[in-house]
Order: sequence, then structure tokens, then C-alpha cells
Amino acid sequence: MEYSKRKLQEEKVFKDPVHRYVHVRDVVIWDLIGTKEFQRLRRIRQLGTTYLTFHGAEHSRFNHSLGVYEIVRRIVDDVFAGRKEWNVEDRLLSLCAALLHDVGHGPFSHSFEKVFGLDHEEFTKMIILGDTEVNAILTRVDRQFPKKVAEVIGKTSENKLVVSLISSQIDADRMDYLQRDAYFTGVSYGHFDMERILRVMRPREDQVVIKQSGMHAVEDYIMSRYQMYWQVYFHPVTRSAEVLLTKILHRAKELHRKGYIFTYKPLHFYSIFNEEYVLQDYLKLDEAVMLYYFQVWQEEEDPILSDLCRRFVNRDLFKYIEFDPAKEYRKHSELEALFKKAGIDPEYYLVYDSSSDLPYDFYRPGEEEERLPIYLLMKNEELRELSRESDIVDAISGKRRTDHKLYFPADRLHDQSSRRNIKKQIRSILEI
Amino acid sequence: MEYSKRKLQEEKVFKDPVHRYVHVRDVVIWDLIGTKEFQRLRRIRQLGTTYLTFHGAEHSRFNHSLGVYEIVRRIVDDVFAGRKEWNVEDRLLSLCAALLHDVGHGPFSHSFEKVFGLDHEEFTKMIILGDTEVNAILTRVDRQFPKKVAEVIGKTSENKLVVSLISSQIDADRMDYLQRDAYFTGVSYGHFDMERILRVMRPREDQVVIKQSGMHAVEDYIMSRYQMYWQVYFHPVTRSAEVLLTKILHRAKELHRKGYIFTYKPLHFYSIFNEEYVLQDYLKLDEAVMLYYFQVWQEEEDPILSDLCRRFVNRDLFKYIEFDPAKEYRKHSELEALFKKAGIDPEYYLVYDSSSDLPYDFYRPGEEEERLPIYLLMKNEELRELSRESDIVDAISGKRRTDHKLYFPADRLHDQSSRRNIKKQIRSILEI
Amino acid sequence: MEYSKRKLQEEKVFKDPVHRYVHVRDVVIWDLIGTKEFQRLRRIRQLGTTYLTFHGAEHSRFNHSLGVYEIVRRIVDDVFAGRKEWNVEDRLLSLCAALLHDVGHGPFSHSFEKVFGLDHEEFTKMIILGDTEVNAILTRVDRQFPKKVAEVIGKTSENKLVVSLISSQIDADRMDYLQRDAYFTGVSYGHFDMERILRVMRPREDQVVIKQSGMHAVEDYIMSRYQMYWQVYFHPVTRSAEVLLTKILHRAKELHRKGYIFTYKPLHFYSIFNEEYVLQDYLKLDEAVMLYYFQVWQEEEDPILSDLCRRFVNRDLFKYIEFDPAKEYRKHSELEALFKKAGIDPEYYLVYDSSSDLPYDFYRPGEEEERLPIYLLMKNEELRELSRESDIVDAISGKRRTDHKLYFPADRLHDQSSRRNIKKQIRSILEI
Amino acid sequence: MEYSKRKLQEEKVFKDPVHRYVHVRDVVIWDLIGTKEFQRLRRIRQLGTTYLTFHGAEHSRFNHSLGVYEIVRRIVDDVFAGRKEWNVEDRLLSLCAALLHDVGHGPFSHSFEKVFGLDHEEFTKMIILGDTEVNAILTRVDRQFPKKVAEVIGKTSENKLVVSLISSQIDADRMDYLQRDAYFTGVSYGHFDMERILRVMRPREDQVVIKQSGMHAVEDYIMSRYQMYWQVYFHPVTRSAEVLLTKILHRAKELHRKGYIFTYKPLHFYSIFNEEYVLQDYLKLDEAVMLYYFQVWQEEEDPILSDLCRRFVNRDLFKYIEFDPAKEYRKHSELEALFKKAGIDPEYYLVYDSSSDLPYDFYRPGEEEERLPIYLLMKNEELRELSRESDIVDAISGKRRTDHKLYFPADRLHDQSSRRNIKKQIRSILEI
Repeated sequence: MEYSKRKLQEEKVFKDPVHRYVHVRDVVIWDLIGTKEFQRLRRIRQLGTTYLTFHGAEHSRFNHSLGVYEIVRRIVDDVFAGRKEWNVEDRLLSLCAALLHDVGHGPFSHSFEKVFGLDHEEFTKMIILGDTEVNAILTRVDRQFPKKVAEVIGKTSENKLVVSLISSQIDADRMDYLQRDAYFTGVSYGHFDMERILRVMRPREDQVVIKQSGMHAVEDYIMSRYQMYWQVYFHPVTRSAEVLLTKILHRAKELHRKGYIFTYKPLHFYSIFNEEYVLQDYLKLDEAVMLYYFQVWQEEEDPILSDLCRRFVNRDLFKYIEFDPAKEYRKHSELEALFKKAGIDPEYYLVYDSSSDLPYDFYRPGEEEERLPIYLLMKNEELRELSRESDIVDAISGKRRTDHKLYFPADRLHDQSSRRNIKKQIRSILEI
Repeated sequence: MEYSKRKLQEEKVFKDPVHRYVHVRDVVIWDLIGTKEFQRLRRIRQLGTTYLTFHGAEHSRFNHSLGVYEIVRRIVDDVFAGRKEWNVEDRLLSLCAALLHDVGHGPFSHSFEKVFGLDHEEFTKMIILGDTEVNAILTRVDRQFPKKVAEVIGKTSENKLVVSLISSQIDADRMDYLQRDAYFTGVSYGHFDMERILRVMRPREDQVVIKQSGMHAVEDYIMSRYQMYWQVYFHPVTRSAEVLLTKILHRAKELHRKGYIFTYKPLHFYSIFNEEYVLQDYLKLDEAVMLYYFQVWQEEEDPILSDLCRRFVNRDLFKYIEFDPAKEYRKHSELEALFKKAGIDPEYYLVYDSSSDLPYDFYRPGEEEERLPIYLLMKNEELRELSRESDIVDAISGKRRTDHKLYFPADRLHDQSSRRNIKKQIRSILEI
Repeated sequence: MEYSKRKLQEEKVFKDPVHRYVHVRDVVIWDLIGTKEFQRLRRIRQLGTTYLTFHGAEHSRFNHSLGVYEIVRRIVDDVFAGRKEWNVEDRLLSLCAALLHDVGHGPFSHSFEKVFGLDHEEFTKMIILGDTEVNAILTRVDRQFPKKVAEVIGKTSENKLVVSLISSQIDADRMDYLQRDAYFTGVSYGHFDMERILRVMRPREDQVVIKQSGMHAVEDYIMSRYQMYWQVYFHPVTRSAEVLLTKILHRAKELHRKGYIFTYKPLHFYSIFNEEYVLQDYLKLDEAVMLYYFQVWQEEEDPILSDLCRRFVNRDLFKYIEFDPAKEYRKHSELEALFKKAGIDPEYYLVYDSSSDLPYDFYRPGEEEERLPIYLLMKNEELRELSRESDIVDAISGKRRTDHKLYFPADRLHDQSSRRNIKKQIRSILEI
Repeated sequence: MEYSKRKLQEEKVFKDPVHRYVHVRDVVIWDLIGTKEFQRLRRIRQLGTTYLTFHGAEHSRFNHSLGVYEIVRRIVDDVFAGRKEWNVEDRLLSLCAALLHDVGHGPFSHSFEKVFGLDHEEFTKMIILGDTEVNAILTRVDRQFPKKVAEVIGKTSENKLVVSLISSQIDADRMDYLQRDAYFTGVSYGHFDMERILRVMRPREDQVVIKQSGMHAVEDYIMSRYQMYWQVYFHPVTRSAEVLLTKILHRAKELHRKGYIFTYKPLHFYSIFNEEYVLQDYLKLDEAVMLYYFQVWQEEEDPILSDLCRRFVNRDLFKYIEFDPAKEYRKHSELEALFKKAGIDPEYYLVYDSSSDLPYDFYRPGEEEERLPIYLLMKNEELRELSRESDIVDAISGKRRTDHKLYFPADRLHDQSSRRNIKKQIRSILEI
């Protein structure tokens, strides 16, 4: 039988704490899960440094990827199957794109990408199209299949309906991570009636739409998203750990550039330091490897690298205050000057960070195009943009909220050295 | 104020998915959590290789240790406080012992300890009594305090009541891990009414006892334990990953002994290979470091080490059959001979493993002394051993169940080389 | 010992599906629960006719009253105890008011009170102050105690802090019913982190306030409330059953007024029909008694009473359309005329009903005084009204939403009698 | 289209707290739910008097019947569909039998049937085969269909597979009630992995069997059952309320027999008192009607009837002691004599009650035939009786446990009348 249609003799199930069971019947999916590129996601945490704030958040991207796959599977097999607007040929494409949508993620992506100017979406494409086990399987389905999958994940596919299953304001990706991250952190936000939402999803030419009767479940989902962003994803303590991470990578790169001789050579980072993005090197870089370096680098001679690594490994994080440099430009300059005087390099030890979120938005011409609105399917088959029907969504629609923080090592501002007066000044400005 | 009595200005809470919140008010506890030895538990998974079977089981021992602390805190603060049989002086001792009971665990303890003849309980003692941040804090409470804590954890303390809170057939350790492991794996076993059990616990001279009215909750707990053992802890796929791990460590040690030149030197393992158990070296060895070696060793020249590492990293596990070598001695020898003929070293590729559990037992003179029975406190203040009151517990009491498996790489038994006939013979014996 | 301070020898616990356990240690509370007036709440459903929409919603006001008591108990015993702003003398007052706040509710209160012009709060007062078992117990505490309890429930007490525990925009009453009604209906709304809210409640002179750190939990609570109102409490099918109930009572009263001879005499209703509100008669009227009458009245000769009863008993409900008579006055008149022509009395068979809710509001001078705002307690001890801090609450604050429905028996609009043309006209106007 | 095959235009869903949603697509099922005989189940509590012990247990048989239907629907539609051993023609039969299996239940069945020598299974048959709305619908499917449904429910059908879905040691009935009763009482027993059990059920000629891989889920189910029996169903306080109920009915029947003139005539009971089992009369007797009588009978002149009714209505229950009259025959006689002397009729006020359960049993020739064993389907397609594979089930298999209680009104044994010495004697024998 054609490879794309082959089924496992006996369905395989993964016990999943969020969706109870993840069901696999397609040989293609089973084979993809077994590839080393996909197994690698076990070594990358879904929420990066969040486990340093919420100790339960130790779950991996492997976990989440299976979850997204399962949600899409339920949509296409239990809800879309048999509907005239749904092309059954798109089934396997949807499942593969769901499973692989995060396959290019690296360790602690946020900081990593920021420092090295990388983009995990690029790596996803390279994994799907390059010389990998994943590519071999997808090619076996059809020579054009890897390209199709990559286009869906990259949102350049003409098949907008399938794209919207994976990336839209109400997609399987978000529905999985909100629930999963709530489950593992243990927060009481993040709950909404996904079963209901799935049941009222309908395929339309350009995107998935939601039957009007499911509006309240969608409102709940949007509120969950809002709460999870501010309670979990943008938690200032998590960001403090991100700040450390970013500064460690930054310092290591800088030292390498300057020709510093590492006791523990950053072999795994060479190609990235040199801005050569070699897929095989990238794939070797997982969180275990990063943590290995952070640990051994505690013994490096460079005091900044070693201090930052020690802080990260032992969770000795920076403290923070509310601070918006744009509004308090002078104060910021003054602080930088004082830090230098105190012998604490502000480049690494006085770090501004902001987070910003838009809980939901309708389409605004000329802006980020991904913000496709959520459409309700009315009884008369008309489509109405969600915020026109929902008072609550209307109330928060397009309202961006931003949060500004300044991070610094409070413990280093208290000693009794000759610099005690400078430090006193700093503390007085920081009001700590 | 005395250090041992100091309270945090504002209670700290950890969001915990199992107990909802972990509450810390004592400065001593807060300080212990901040030590690097305790933070290190974040880098050691609670269930070792189980995440390769149940993908949710990625939680760390840090997680569990906080949980055990919280359970003991609830017992001593909410249930025991004010009872005449409870000495309030034992409160801090109980909390510290609970928090630190697993602090000596290494990465993938089971395999690690088996191969290197180590015992994590020894390391726990060394961490508590040696030159560590943990020891400094405990000593600040009282010069004798570290020793007291170590004795409770080591079960040599004369304070049997406190010992029984941490290690008995119904202790805080088991109550936490059953629930926690069920939560993270997502299995539906592992649930019992802990709130009820805590409420009916009573302090008695030699141990914690359970008021008779809580008997059914205890029955449920024992059944949970039974199910978790067979469904999760002894899962044959998890054991297959353990087998790989054990054989990797075994091989590395062997290569080192023979003077093999590693491309990636096992620096972190030297003292252990040499059977010098240096605490500072041990503390550097966490799962990230182990996984780093497994990953780089895929590129070692030694084909066995490299193959086993590749298998572990990519989750290419051995298959298994039911097999008890004690009963089928001849078949086992024959298999070993055939494996050798086929060029597959049976030392590493034909591995027998068994698991065995006793769900509950009453005291049997002359046997393992830790098996203290669970006592019910009857209305007339008499103590009765649980299995005399509970039909269900009586039915399973002392019934040991054992499971025997033989592991091997099924994929290597199928090629079409000149050895195909030998492999066919092997497959026929293994009935695969 | 003084009666007000007496404790049960052994704490009593009620297993509660929402709060897990309800704990009773005070003899006064135990005695109040045992009174016949309180036990009567077992025969009155918390959500009236909602069980005809959500079949799980069969829980009684007894259930809810214990829940409110338990929440207040946790606030005063676990959070307020020991705080200087909390007067421990108010403890028993708070517990009794919580337990008894709904004791005057009658069967299907909403319809019942509407038809007979009653007010359950009046009856609550009569039960607390009149010749009842409840009164006897409260008087035993202190001669003035019944009055104090009644004033707290009636919101006329000078002790505004205690009043706010039971009736404010974030009180124990709402926190219990949202969670309880969500639990029994099975909807996924209604969840919020009550444990967190309780922990951050602080007593202040005029009301309970919430520490700023709990703001997000409060936002979640307000959203839950919003969703529960529209998804459960104002569900149009539930209101359809309410419409039937109201019309049955209306008809029975009317028939009684006209001197109709009932086959099954409405003995239990006489005093109410005659607008004599006799406490002892009121207390006999529970849902079982009402359902008894509805059942036997199916056999009454009056066709309207018998038809409405049959419909209620067998859940043969009216259908509905969106309709606002204020906007479509002419259409409404036309419908009434056509119903009359068709021989279907519009008084009983063409019923307009509207529901309206305000999810949260801050204080608006000169309006309903009960809408006390929720105050956040900032770090600097300042109080800030919630909507000034919370974007989401600000967005929905003061936004009233109203829903208009017209109810009618669709089944009677389809027959083939001589009136078929009139009925066709009706159907065309109703667009059914 | 044929009535039996007609589908609703849009699937209807019931929100169910236990199974989340109950799905109805068949017109036949929808019509059956709408019948007055089925709606009547809303007025009969699933657990009779249990709500007087566990206040949450106020759920009706309507609730449970929908749940059993939903479980069978999932089995036949999601698991059996397409399997060669399953005859798709049996689908509607299974669904109807599931939905209607309890339709003949009366109010407080246990006591009711005991006093009047009735059998709800007889009434189920009469409702299905007699002149009812249910019968009309079933007949519309096929003239023979009512008979078929009745035979499945009555376990006389030749279609043993379908019978076993509804009544066997692991049937949809039990799986629903264990979970549902646990949910509403709030106890932590009653949980097992039903989703897993459903997935491993397989149709075989004579009954449903369970794939071996589901054995542990079945063990958990059997333990749940054991715990629910002893913790909930046989709870001595619930039985105390049952005792009252039984004695009320007993007394009313006796008074009627003796020609006592009731102030409130037991019109609804006449045919039953006269042992004429008239279906239409039976159907009018629901819990509301019974509670109506209990309430008005508080005012009857007969002191026993009035006292028992007052006790039931106000939950003033009898106390109990462990007592087995078979073993303590003399003591029992003595107590009866003393009760008489004290003027307390032992017939109504000294009541023995026992409960007994067998958690699981395999087939024992010549005994109750319904105890069909549970069979595991081994990998080699062989069937093995559960207790041969499961140590735990083997341990408790066939172990009957019995509990004996003696109930009496403790409050009446304490007065200071002339009979105080007799009462003292009684108390001394009862050891209270």
C-alpha cells in the first residue's frame, strides 16, 4: 500500500496528562516521531527558564508537539471528516505540519535567537527540507511533500485553511500550550472548554471558523491566553533568568571574538559564533549541552562569564524594579555611570527588559499580517468578526499592554568596600 | 532572634501542581532551598528514564523534595501541633529532614549506583555533614543539628516518630511521589485522599499511626502504590532505557580501565571510575552533564559505546520478552553463544532484568526491619496492625510479585548478512 | 462553658464535592444545621428550574449554605485570625450569618416571589427572629444575637466588614455558588483560584479588601461570574421553564380568586393566595409540595392550569425567539390579537422575558448602594478601586448587557384546524 | 427514511459533569428522552436517602440513565463499529436498552420494594410493553422491538453480548454509577480509567471481553466498586434513613389495613396497599409525591406515623450499634421486651439491618447466574478469567463481607420518666 496511507497494525497511544491519550495510527506519523530530530525535542524545555519560577514547568517541546498533533488529529478526524468544505487530501499535510511545527526550536530559544540573530523557523525549514531523517520520511510520501509541509509551517502555503489550523489567533498550537503550560505550572488559569471549541470549528476556504454557539468558549480561551501571558509567560522572575542566559551567551561570544582562551572550549558554539549556521551543528545543541557549558564555565577565569554561569546554575537571579528607560533616560544614564564607578559592568549587570502583549486583535490593514481575526459562523452562514459579537473581546481588542523592568544583582550593591558610597547612591536611585 | 525560630517577613509560596501551594515561613527552610546543593536537584529527574515511556514524566527531584517538605509541614503544623504526644521541638528537624531526604541523589540513580557501587544515602550524609552550603545553614541552627538531620534521613535516629514521617510504609515521601508521578505521567492511578489521611494521622511514641476511621483512605493509598509500581515504575520500556544506560556506564568504565583513549574525555567520571568518591566531583555530575557525554560519545570510535549512546539519545531502545534465566538456564546459554557467533556482544546486548514488589507487609521477625507495619488507632486507643482490620490489605499482604525480562536489540537480528542463519536461530528461540 | 464558645468533642466533617470538606467545630453551628428550618433547604434546589437545561444542576440550597459557611470559616479562621483589624468577637456572627443567609428562600424563589410579591429576605428575617428552632439557638448565644445576625444578612448592620463577607461584589456567597453551580452543571466556566483569593483577603474597617498581588485571581473570578450568568443563569431554556412556573402559579391564584373549585385543593397556598404571609405555612411549602400540586393539577378541569402543569412535569417547554416588545410594540400587539383569535390565551401563552447583568461596577453615587466596589490593597497600604488597576475589569466595568425573549408553545401553532390560517400568520411573524 | 435510521439534523448534546457531553444523533433516542415516563426519572434520586449522609448526592436517575446510554454509545460507535464480531443491527437495541434500563424504578426503590413486595424490573417491562409513550416509540421502530428491548433489560434475551453491555460484572451501568456517585458525593473513590477500559473492550459471541492490556484498569475499577460499596452505598447513616422510610411505609400500610382514617388520605398509595399493581398509578408515585405525604403526615394523629415522618423530614435519624441478632439472639429478645416495657414499639423502633457485598466473583456452578466472570482476551485470542491473571482480584474474589447493625432512637432512651430504669437497662445493653 502507498506509504502515505499505511496504518499501524495496532493503534499506538501515548499517555498524555493534558489530552489523556495521543493516538497514532498513521505509519508516517509514527516514523516521524521516531526520528532523531524529533526525539531531540525531548531535550528542549517548552518554557525555557520558566521552571526557575514555576518549578513544575519542566516539560519539553516533545510533549507539546505531540499535543498539537493530537488536537489537529481530533479536528480533522472527528470534526472535519466528511464535510464538503474539507479536502481529505489535506489530512496528512495537516498532521505532519502540526507535529513538526516546532522541530527547529533550539535550547532556550528566546535568548539564544536574540543573541545570535537566529530564527528557529529557518531551522525548521532546514530540517524539513535538508538531509535529515525527517526529510527522508516526508519525501517517501511524495517528492513535493516536504516543501508543502514547510510552507504550511512557514505560513507561505496557499492552503490557508491548513495554515490556520497551526497558526492563527485560535490554533492548535495555542490551544495546546495554554492548557499544557497551565497544567505543568499548576496555575488555575489556562482552562477553557477545548472539547467544545473543537466541536464547533468549521472549515472554510481561507481559514477555520467557529460556529456562533461556541462564542463563549472562545471568549474563555482568549481570557486564558491573557492571564497566561501575564501570570506565566512574562513573569518577571522568569525574565530575570532569561536576562542571565542572554548575558552569558553574549559574554561567551564576545570572549571568543576577542580571542579569549577558554579552559572549557565552546566547541558546540563555534559555527554559531562564526555566524555559519550549520544544521548538523545546530542539532547537537540542546539544553543538556548548554547546561553542561554553563556548569563548567563556572570555573573559567573570566570573572563575568564565571559569575553569570554560577548565578544561572545556582539560581542566584538578578532583582528588578519597574523602570522605563524611555521615560527616565537621565536616571538610566546616571545608573550606568554609577555602576561603572562601582566596578560592575552595566553591559552585563544593569539590564532593561520589556514584555508586551495584545490579547486579541481584528485585522488592521497594513499591520502584522498574521493577526487574522477569529470569525464566527452565524446561523445564516454569514461570517462575523469575533469582537463584533462579544462584548468582552471587544472591550480588550487591540489593547496592547507593556511592562518595563530593570534587572540588576542586588547582592552586589550592599558591600562595605571603599565603594560603599557609590553603592548607596545606586540603591537610593533604585529605591531598594 | 534565634536563627532556628526566625520567620520570613512575608510567607513565600511556591505554586505546585500537586499540592497547589508549598508554603515556607521559616528562614532556615528558605535558606536551604537556596543552596546550590538543593538547586542541583532541579537537574535530576525524579523518575530517571521514565520520560522515555511516559513523556510527561520530566519532573525533577527538586519538585518532589518541596512536595515532601510540604506534606510534613501540613502534618506537623495542621495536625500534630498542640497534641501532647508531639514535641514541638521536633518540628524543624522534621521539616529539614523532609526537604533534604533526597539531596544526595545522583543522575539516573538506579543505573548509576548499580554500575559504580554507590549509594545515594551515603552522599546525602556527606552533603549534610560535609563542607557544603547545606551544612553551613544546619550548623547555624545548632552544632548538633546536621547530625540529627542525617540520622533521621539515615533511619538511625532514636526519634522513631520523626523517622516514620519520612520513611515508613505510609510516609510523606511515598505520599508525594505517588501523587506527583501520577500527575506528571498522566496515569489515572496514584490518586488517594491524602487530605483525609493527613487529618487522621496521630503521633505516637514510636511512629505515626492512623485513626481507624481513615482505614479506607489507607487501603486506597496501598492500591495506588501497587498500581503505580506495575504500571509506571516497573514499566518494561523504562527498564529497557535503564538497561541501555547501565550498559553505557559499564562500557565507559571498562574502556577507561583498559586505557582506551576517549575523543571526549570523561573528566567528570574520573574520580568515580577510580572509586574515589569525592563529594565535590559527585555534585557536578547531574543529568545535563551525563546527557552531554552520551551525546558526544556517539562519535567515539568504540562501536559499542557509540552505538549504545546513539540508541539512548535517539530512543532506539532494546525490545524484550518474558524470560527467567533461572528457569531457562540452558536457553540463556544457547542465546549467549549464538549472540557471540553473530558478532553481537551478549554482555551488552543480551540483558536480563527483573523487578519485584511487595505492596504491603506487616512485621516479620528477622526480616528487613524497615517494613514497619501500619497501625490503626482504634476507638479504645488500642493499636491494630492494618491487615488485621482490612480484608483487602490482608489479601495482598506479603505477596511478592516478580517480573523477568530479557532485553536485546531486535533491529540487529534481521539483517541479510552471512550470519543470517544464526540470527534466524536467535529469532526462533526468542519467538520474535 | 458559655454556649457560644462550646466546641464539639470531635470535629464533624461533611464531605463536600466543591470544598472537599466542610468542617464544623462550634456547637452553635452544629445545632443550627440540625434545625428543621435549615434541613428544609434540602428540599429547595439552588438553581430552581436549571436542572431542566443542565441535568446535573439538582443540588439544593442546603449544599450551598454549608459551602458559604465553610468559605467564611476559612477566611476568619485561617486568614483573619490574629490580624489587628479583625475583631475575633465577630467570628461567630460571621459564621451564623453565612450559614443562614439563604434560610428564607422558598421553592423556585424567582417565579414564586414574582407572582406573590414576596421577598425571601423578609422570610429570612422572620425565621431568625420568629418562633423557630433557629431563633432558639441564636437566642441561647445571646438575647441580642438573632437581631445581629438578621442585620448582617439584611445588610443593615453597622458592622460593614462582616456584611461584606456575605454580600459584596466578591463575597463568600458568590464564590461558593459560582464554583458549585459550575461543578454540578458540568460547565467549564466558574473556575477561579479561590484559595489564592482567600489568602490575599484582608479585613479593613468598612469591608474586605484584596491584596494587589491577588488581582489576577479576582479578574478570573469576575470573568467566571460573567460567563456563568450568560451560560447558565440566564439560559433561555431555563427561563422557558421559569415562564411555565410563573404562569402556573399565576393561573392557580387567578382561579382561586374567581372561586374555581379545585379537585386537588391548594391547601398549602391558601394563606399566600390571601396575601397573609404566615411563617409556619411558608415553611411547609417546599419544592416537593409544589411538584406534588403540579402533578395532581394535571388532572384539573381548567384546561390552562392542567396544560401548563402537564408541560412543566413532562418538560414540554415553550420555544422562544429574540424579541424586544419595547422596540416592536406593534408586532407584539398583533401577535396578541392573533393568539386570541387562534384561541390561545396570550396572557399565558405569549410571554416576554428579559435578563440583564452588570458583571462588575464601581460605585456610582445615587445608584444601587449594594454595588460596593472591590478595593485592592496596594503595597503602600493605599486602597485602589479594582477597575483602575485591571485593564480587563475596566473594559467591562459598568457595561450592562440585556437579553430579550418571547416565549410561546410552538407545538400549538401547527395544527390543521379551521384556525390554520391564523396560525400560519403567527408563524410567519415569529419566523418559525 | 426508516424511523430507526433517522438522524437529527443537528446533533444534540447534554452537558454532563461526568462524561462532559452526552451526544444524541438518533431520532429514536431523542424521542425516548422526551417521553413522560423517561422525564419522570428526574423526580427520583439515583441514591435514595444517601443525600442525608453525603449532601451532594442529590442527583437523579435521569442523570444516570443518560450516562449509561452515553457509555454504550461510545462502546458501539467508537470501539465496536466495524469489527466483524459486532452486528451493527444491534446498535439501536443496545442504545435503547441502556437508556431505559432503569425506567421502572420507583421512588426510594430499596425500601419501597421491600415493603410492598414490588420489583422495579417488572415495572420496567410494563413500561416498555404497556400503553406508554415509550412503547409507542419503540413500536414505531418495529413491532417486535419493545419485546427485544425488554428482554435485554430483563437478561432473558438470547443476545448475550448486548445483555452483557448493560448487566455484567463490568457493564455500562456500573461504570456510570460508580463515577457519577463518586462525583456527586465528592468522595475520592470511584475513579478508574474508563476511557482505557472502553478502548480495550471487544465484542465476543457471549459477552464483552477485555483485552489483556487493560487488566490494570479493570483492577482499579473493581477496587473502586469495593470502596464505593462500603464507603457510600452501605453507609450506616444512609441505612438509618432507609430504616425510617421502610417503617413509615410499613406503618402507613398497616394503618390502612386496620381502617385508620387518615387526615391526609394516601390516595396515591391505594392501589399499592391493595396489591393491585396498576402502571398508571405507579408512574404517578415519584419522590416529590412521597415527600409530600411524609410532610403532611407529620400532622396525622397516629403517633408512630407522625413521629417517623417528622424524623425523616427533619433528618432526626436513629442511632446504631454493631449487632448481629443471629449471634446474640437472647440479647435481642431481651431488648425487644425492654422496649415494649418502655412503651417504644420495637417493631418500628428497634430495627436490624445488614449489608453484604461480593466485590467480584468468577462463575460458580449452581449459584446466582448473573455473576458472569470478566474475561481477558489474551494476545493469542484465548479467554482467561480475570482472577487467574490478576493477583489482586484473585485475593478478593468471592470474599463476601457482611455488616450487621441495630438501629434505634437514642433520644428516646434518655428521659427521666418513671421508665427511667428500664431505659437505663436498655442503654446498658446497647452500651451507649
